[in-house]
Amino acid sequence: MPDASLLTVFPAPPSAPLVIEHVHEEFTSVCPMTGHPDFGRVTLRYVPGATCVELKSLKLYFHSFRNEGIFYEAVTSRIRDDLAALLAARWLQVVTEWRGRGGIRSRIIASAGEVPTEWRCG
Amino acid sequence: MPDASLLTVFPAPPSAPLVIEHVHEEFTSVCPMTGHPDFGRVTLRYVPGATCVELKSLKLYFHSFRNEGIFYEAVTSRIRDDLAALLAARWLQVVTEWRGRGGIRSRIIASAGEVPTEWRCG
Amino acid sequence: MPDASLLTVFPAPPSAPLVIEHVHEEFTSVCPMTGHPDFGRVTLRYVPGATCVELKSLKLYFHSFRNEGIFYEAVTSRIRDDLAALLAARWLQVVTEWRGRGGIRSRIIASAGEVPTEWRCG
Amino acid sequence: MPDASLLTVFPAPPSAPLVIEHVHEEFTSVCPMTGHPDFGRVTLRYVPGATCVELKSLKLYFHSFRNEGIFYEAVTSRIRDDLAALLAARWLQVVTEWRGRGGIRSRIIASAGEVPTEWRCG
Amino acid sequence: MPDASLLTVFPAPPSAPLVIEHVHEEFTSVCPMTGHPDFGRVTLRYVPGATCVELKSLKLYFHSFRNEGIFYEAVTSRIRDDLAALLAARWLQVVTEWRGRGGIRSRIIASAGEVPTEWRCG
Amino acid sequence: MPDASLLTVFPAPPSAPLVIEHVHEEFTSVCPMTGHPDFGRVTLRYVPGATCVELKSLKLYFHSFRNEGIFYEAVTSRIRDDLAALLAARWLQVVTEWRGRGGIRSRIIASAGEVPTEWRCG
Amino acid sequence: MPDASLLTVFPAPPSAPLVIEHVHEEFTSVCPMTGHPDFGRVTLRYVPGATCVELKSLKLYFHSFRNEGIFYEAVTSRIRDDLAALLAARWLQVVTEWRGRGGIRSRIIASAGEVPTEWRCG
Amino acid sequence: MPDASLLTVFPAPPSAPLVIEHVHEEFTSVCPMTGHPDFGRVTLRYVPGATCVELKSLKLYFHSFRNEGIFYEAVTSRIRDDLAALLAARWLQVVTEWRGRGGIRSRIIASAGEVPTEWRCG
Amino acid sequence: MPDASLLTVFPAPPSAPLVIEHVHEEFTSVCPMTGHPDFGRVTLRYVPGATCVELKSLKLYFHSFRNEGIFYEAVTSRIRDDLAALLAARWLQVVTEWRGRGGIRSRIIASAGEVPTEWRCG
Amino acid sequence: MPDASLLTVFPAPPSAPLVIEHVHEEFTSVCPMTGHPDFGRVTLRYVPGATCVELKSLKLYFHSFRNEGIFYEAVTSRIRDDLAALLAARWLQVVTEWRGRGGIRSRIIASAGEVPTEWRCG
Repeated sequence: MPDASLLTVFPAPPSAPLVIEHVHEEFTSVCPMTGHPDFGRVTLRYVPGATCVELKSLKLYFHSFRNEGIFYEAVTSRIRDDLAALLAARWLQVVTEWRGRGGIRSRIIASAGEVPTEWRCG
Repeated sequence: MPDASLLTVFPAPPSAPLVIEHVHEEFTSVCPMTGHPDFGRVTLRYVPGATCVELKSLKLYFHSFRNEGIFYEAVTSRIRDDLAALLAARWLQVVTEWRGRGGIRSRIIASAGEVPTEWRCG
Repeated sequence: MPDASLLTVFPAPPSAPLVIEHVHEEFTSVCPMTGHPDFGRVTLRYVPGATCVELKSLKLYFHSFRNEGIFYEAVTSRIRDDLAALLAARWLQVVTEWRGRGGIRSRIIASAGEVPTEWRCG
Repeated sequence: MPDASLLTVFPAPPSAPLVIEHVHEEFTSVCPMTGHPDFGRVTLRYVPGATCVELKSLKLYFHSFRNEGIFYEAVTSRIRDDLAALLAARWLQVVTEWRGRGGIRSRIIASAGEVPTEWRCG
Repeated sequence: MPDASLLTVFPAPPSAPLVIEHVHEEFTSVCPMTGHPDFGRVTLRYVPGATCVELKSLKLYFHSFRNEGIFYEAVTSRIRDDLAALLAARWLQVVTEWRGRGGIRSRIIASAGEVPTEWRCG
Repeated sequence: MPDASLLTVFPAPPSAPLVIEHVHEEFTSVCPMTGHPDFGRVTLRYVPGATCVELKSLKLYFHSFRNEGIFYEAVTSRIRDDLAALLAARWLQVVTEWRGRGGIRSRIIASAGEVPTEWRCG
Repeated sequence: MPDASLLTVFPAPPSAPLVIEHVHEEFTSVCPMTGHPDFGRVTLRYVPGATCVELKSLKLYFHSFRNEGIFYEAVTSRIRDDLAALLAARWLQVVTEWRGRGGIRSRIIASAGEVPTEWRCG
Repeated sequence: MPDASLLTVFPAPPSAPLVIEHVHEEFTSVCPMTGHPDFGRVTLRYVPGATCVELKSLKLYFHSFRNEGIFYEAVTSRIRDDLAALLAARWLQVVTEWRGRGGIRSRIIASAGEVPTEWRCG
Repeated sequence: MPDASLLTVFPAPPSAPLVIEHVHEEFTSVCPMTGHPDFGRVTLRYVPGATCVELKSLKLYFHSFRNEGIFYEAVTSRIRDDLAALLAARWLQVVTEWRGRGGIRSRIIASAGEVPTEWRCG
Repeated sequence: MPDASLLTVFPAPPSAPLVIEHVHEEFTSVCPMTGHPDFGRVTLRYVPGATCVELKSLKLYFHSFRNEGIFYEAVTSRIRDDLAALLAARWLQVVTEWRGRGGIRSRIIASAGEVPTEWRCG
């Protein structure tokens, strides 16, 4: 089941602000209605406060959804909430994009805070 | 015939706002003038209030137009109205795009409320 | 010859505003200087008032230009005027794009009213 | 030699404004330094006043540069001046784009008046 | 190990401002968690003050990360800090983009100062 | 060696303003550190004052860098300075883009004056 | 239900052989296991004997599968059999290509007779 | 109506064989079932005997189908027969490709003689 | 007028065979029926015997067609004949590809000798 | 000037055959007619006998053509001859592709020996 305790952090570099993006192409969970697997891409973007999420722990955290029956919207919100609690980031955004099911493909965006200027110029 | 009673909801995640997009590539209904089938793509975008539409119920709702004689404009408006009544969303947009008929292809947009900032940055 | 009496309407859906686009890829008329056929694409976009143009009637209206000797500019203006008179639309735009003649290809835009916000977000 | 007397006009349609674009892919003139042929694309865009330029006459006008020794900049300025004098357009722009010579390819823009709003939405 | 002493400068050209971009496609360092190699692209953009970084020295500086165990975020911040200290640039931006690890690919942006107008028009 | 005396001008067309772009795909000079050849694209954009640069003379001027040992930044600044002195242009921009060296590819922008409105609409 | 009696023919042109291809992008039937709609493309290719299939009747024949519960393989074989019986063609091929269901997309080919030489050179 | 008397020829160049291809993108005729216009591309390829078809006469011949009610297959066969009779070509092929009607797009190939070796190497 | 005396040769390199391709993108001549200019690409491919055609002389030879009224087929055959007479090549092919006229675009191939093995492996 | 003494070799690996390709994107020499620089890509492919060409020496050899006045055909033949003499390769091919001059771009192929089977499968 989704397990935020898998996530670990390390101190953010001290000086000027960073904008960080991690894109996970291989997310999978289970549809709570049909029990069939869902597949999607998860994009995490944030401006760190005092800490950054460690990448291998992020991967293991994503893997912990593998056998969880959970809606797309709940996946997106859960990741946003877990990482916001972990990181106390100055800005954070989670985008999930899902392969088609029954001829329908979906995209969900959850965020907190203002988009930083540096990102727009990236 | 189109049947909004097929639609079911589940509670939206409690915390910060989400922006949700569902794209259905396999919509079909019937032309009320000629009786011939029409084919199109339906895109639903919304910022939920207290509830989200369940995806399988959305699929069955779309299927309920299969043998209905109905204009493109009425399809678009009907879906917008049914989902607006169901969801009490903070913003909702329906876009239908139709394969050519008689050498003419069409696109219809219906919406309610302001486009959210999060969407523009997606 | 161009015949606006071919156009028929049906009542627009009652609730919130729509933005409608019809693209006709197979327009043909005749050059009034040389008698040779011209070929182009006609795009009609509008925000309806009380009525929408019926699609099959729109096709037949376009077909009525088939053997008419008429300039590109007059085709564009004529369609804009005929549909504006028919629909009393809140916004209406006609774009014609023409295949090359003598090594020159052309595009003409005629419109009335302000571009709606919904369209820009489409 | 370039001959503006080849250009003819017809009355612009009376009602709302139009934006017109003609793209000529087959412009050729002669380099005044080397005598070698130059090749380019000429794009004319304008919002007509009382008259429109007739397309076949525009083609013959372009052909009249075929054996003229003339700089790119002078071609561009000459076309702008001839058509501005002919049309008294509310806005007019001429863009010439030239195939490479000596490993250098060029683009020249000449215009008069403000870009119309309709064009930006085209 | 990363060695900023490898970096050398030469005087910037005296007259009007420049905007400079160097893109290094072959950056490699080592993951401090797993010991596996990481691969990425590093983009450096800056408006020089009195000096420019010499390109071969920049290459050798990038090579000095080859066997260093270091997080993506620290690489990005370290390069920004080393070059900011070296150049006293009026604006400086470092973007690192990393090939996938465990199904996750990443991008980090660090900068200092305002994006110059000249860059936006580039 | 770079030789601005190769550049010649001709009078700019008298009437409304022009925006001019010349793109040279075949620039080559020599690295002053290694003696190896460098290859790049040079783009010159300007709004002329009283004179325009003649294209063949521009080509020969570019060729005069062929065996010169010179940094990218100095090439860019030198071309900007030579052409600014020659043309007294109302706006002038030089962009150099260089093929990779040691896995690093570079782009340098030098300019003088404000970007003209006509260019943005090109 | 599928109804071959909808198909009509007209005499083939008398002289040399023809190769004919009709591609229908909007085929839909119903999955006999789940009751959900299936969507696909049907391609018919043949070398006529004495008769050709009339295009509008072919469209209506395809439409007659709309609410039929039938496997992909049976659709393909049925169309091949119905048209082979109708046309007595010298060669006939039916290819069906189906949108994904449960992450699986399918293609089925049924044919009769030898591929004609003319087709290979088309 | 289709009028082969519009076609004229000129003597083929005397020496070695040629392979000739003419592609007409603007063919239009009328559906004999519905009276609606059809649109397509006609490709003519041949190896001439003693004569070549003159291009303007070919254009006028294609135009003569504009208001003719005729099946795709008959168009293709008719053009092949008319040109074969006119040219006594050593090889001749006609390919027609038609825009979709009722969701069906079509392609027809008619030919006479062996594909020449030169064509395959083109 | 077309002038083969403009063509000059130089001795082919002595040792093993070469395959040579020259592509001229800027060919222009005049239609002998209408007097309007034609534009096309000419591709020359050959395996030299004792001599090669000099490139600048080839350019001037192509330019000599600029104001000649001549059919596409005759252009192609003429170039093949002039170059075959000049070069005594072991294989030679001329392909002309013409921009559309009256909605028809054309391609002509003339050749002499067998396609060399080296070309197929190029 | 071209200097084959710059080329050095190293022993080829002893066992099974290799197929080797080196592509140099930055070749430049000088036109012997006009004195202007030429630019092209040189591709070397070979199956080694006892030795392979060392890559840095190959680069310096290519650089030695930088200020040489030499025809395209002679460049191609010279490189083939120099490398054939150096390597005693079982198969060797040189392809040069040249940027346009006077609207003509060129490609030359020189080879020795049979194309190896391994290459065809590459």
